[in-house]
Amino acid sequence: MAIPSLKNDRLLRALAKQPVDRTPIWIMRQAGRYLPEYRAIRKQVPDFMNLCRNSDLATEVTLQPISRFPLDAAILFSDILTIPDAMGLGVYFEAGEGPKLRKPIVKSAISSLQLPNIADELSYVFNTIKKINVELNQSIPLLGFSGSPWTLACYMIEGGSSKNFSKIKQMMFDAPEALHELLAILADAVTDYLQQQIAAGVHAVQIFDTWGSILDPINYNKFSLRYIENIVNNLKKSNPETPIILFTKHANSLLKFIVNLNLDAISLDWTCDLATARELIAGKIALQGNLDPCVLHASKSSIVAEATKILQVFNGDNGHIFNLGHGIHPEVSPDKVAVLVDTVHKVSAEIISKKKGSF
Amino acid sequence: MAIPSLKNDRLLRALAKQPVDRTPIWIMRQAGRYLPEYRAIRKQVPDFMNLCRNSDLATEVTLQPISRFPLDAAILFSDILTIPDAMGLGVYFEAGEGPKLRKPIVKSAISSLQLPNIADELSYVFNTIKKINVELNQSIPLLGFSGSPWTLACYMIEGGSSKNFSKIKQMMFDAPEALHELLAILADAVTDYLQQQIAAGVHAVQIFDTWGSILDPINYNKFSLRYIENIVNNLKKSNPETPIILFTKHANSLLKFIVNLNLDAISLDWTCDLATARELIAGKIALQGNLDPCVLHASKSSIVAEATKILQVFNGDNGHIFNLGHGIHPEVSPDKVAVLVDTVHKVSAEIISKKKGSF
Repeated sequence: MAIPSLKNDRLLRALAKQPVDRTPIWIMRQAGRYLPEYRAIRKQVPDFMNLCRNSDLATEVTLQPISRFPLDAAILFSDILTIPDAMGLGVYFEAGEGPKLRKPIVKSAISSLQLPNIADELSYVFNTIKKINVELNQSIPLLGFSGSPWTLACYMIEGGSSKNFSKIKQMMFDAPEALHELLAILADAVTDYLQQQIAAGVHAVQIFDTWGSILDPINYNKFSLRYIENIVNNLKKSNPETPIILFTKHANSLLKFIVNLNLDAISLDWTCDLATARELIAGKIALQGNLDPCVLHASKSSIVAEATKILQVFNGDNGHIFNLGHGIHPEVSPDKVAVLVDTVHKVSAEIISKKKGSF
Repeated sequence: MAIPSLKNDRLLRALAKQPVDRTPIWIMRQAGRYLPEYRAIRKQVPDFMNLCRNSDLATEVTLQPISRFPLDAAILFSDILTIPDAMGLGVYFEAGEGPKLRKPIVKSAISSLQLPNIADELSYVFNTIKKINVELNQSIPLLGFSGSPWTLACYMIEGGSSKNFSKIKQMMFDAPEALHELLAILADAVTDYLQQQIAAGVHAVQIFDTWGSILDPINYNKFSLRYIENIVNNLKKSNPETPIILFTKHANSLLKFIVNLNLDAISLDWTCDLATARELIAGKIALQGNLDPCVLHASKSSIVAEATKILQVFNGDNGHIFNLGHGIHPEVSPDKVAVLVDTVHKVSAEIISKKKGSF
């Protein structure tokens, strides 16, 4: 894999399972509510989707954590529901709650559903990517992302987040063909969307399969993983140089299926035992993660201790990107993030240099 | 294991891994809001804990699903938070929400925490058990239950359910000794409570470790499983004839630790692959589960199909108790439950009799 020329290419090297001098770190939701400067912007633009649609402000917000912390990657500030929004389902947010849709999808509407014109409807995303890269000026890589087809379908059918996801599951049990039709459309839309993010300049992409693990393993393969696999295979044809990361919440026993995909990295949450995952993956795919976001509620010495434990499991081997196992919580103090980033850099540099010395 | 004399002892036989003529079924939260007769009682007693404390009404509610469906076990109607309530933490419920505590536990209060006088404070539970057994008149077994120490501690420290459980996790990272002190007290209290439930007449007990799987595997072993193991070992000494079932939500990769406990059954949710679990357990422990509760939102033909799939994985082998993977949802129609119970009985009887014939 050819690595683009960047001042700090550690993340891309780790994705290529090449040696690094220290473990790269970025943080899911690193641009977000735990930052006072982010909350200040949100006061100006209370509507979250309007913030995503405003390329200047989305660029500013993307760069906020980069100015504060020596992070090894930026991630596009956007929402996982831009595709359903582009399909006309009307994504909106209510204070303190997850995303909602004004027009959830019902079974009878699926057959007439059209693939959205991603280039037009989501041009704001591609403009933001270009602006961020101008500002980053080849310093660090920029990550693009999308929700997985199953995860998008969950929101589209439930009309928002859900306790039990009983509506989409009812459709899965009673009308699997209709759900497959929707998922196929979404897989095409996600492929198109990620291809255009790459064309606009992102250096790697992450697919968020937030809700795959609410399924039993058989239906997970049929209704979630299969469509992610289609996306991955298509991207590997159109953009073979662009690394793909897959995040699956609670991957656990699903990991044995995920490893068969042509992925560059798998992002794990803290419920997955890293040593077991490393054994299963046998160095073929990089791993991202997996600190419990709750560690950032603890004392600075606990943060150092817990981050160090994860780095020790990897022992400086190639193919690790440090991250939380899930998005950072809004209540976390930015000081704690500074401690985490510093710890990951220092401790991993020590482990890696000690290892080199031992050869 | 000696099996008490009951008209229908299929559940106890399945727990003992003895042959049955059909697979026994009971349903988590079978006495609950999906039943109109339950909602009628709740109108009279809007305070949930007062319903638990009223032995006549708790008996009536326990028996409601038994009158409707040919279930193979009754389960005591109560709450998993009776112990924190007995400790004076003031458990209450707000409409449509989970349990809350008026006086959550803070770290500084743990060292002065007293073991509650279970016999006195929870005498209402033991009275209810006796009343239920009089009404059941040796027809089917009665299950008792408790929350696990970790799960109780989650509610006690968070003050209710929680999105991220950041308070208890902060204590776990920053003050593990204090948390261990609390968990040790709770393990003693749960042991005492279950022993007294058994003395009052329950035929088997289930420990609900609802929140064990929010932990990484190492801390799960340290903070949840270890205390469950203490309870199980103590109960096996004091009450060797009483079967113990452990329910762990999302057990998945934790199952390899759980199988080492001296349990009679493990209750799994639908995210666990049954065939893999059976392989791991190798016939040593019975399995309970594991239909996705969302199946009961689907059509009757889907319910028949999905229940049949689970029975086919077991192929009529000894040691299976049919159940949902989690509590039944309040929106489910009782008609669907009737279909499920009937399907499990008929299909399993066919599978079992076919198997016998094939020898």
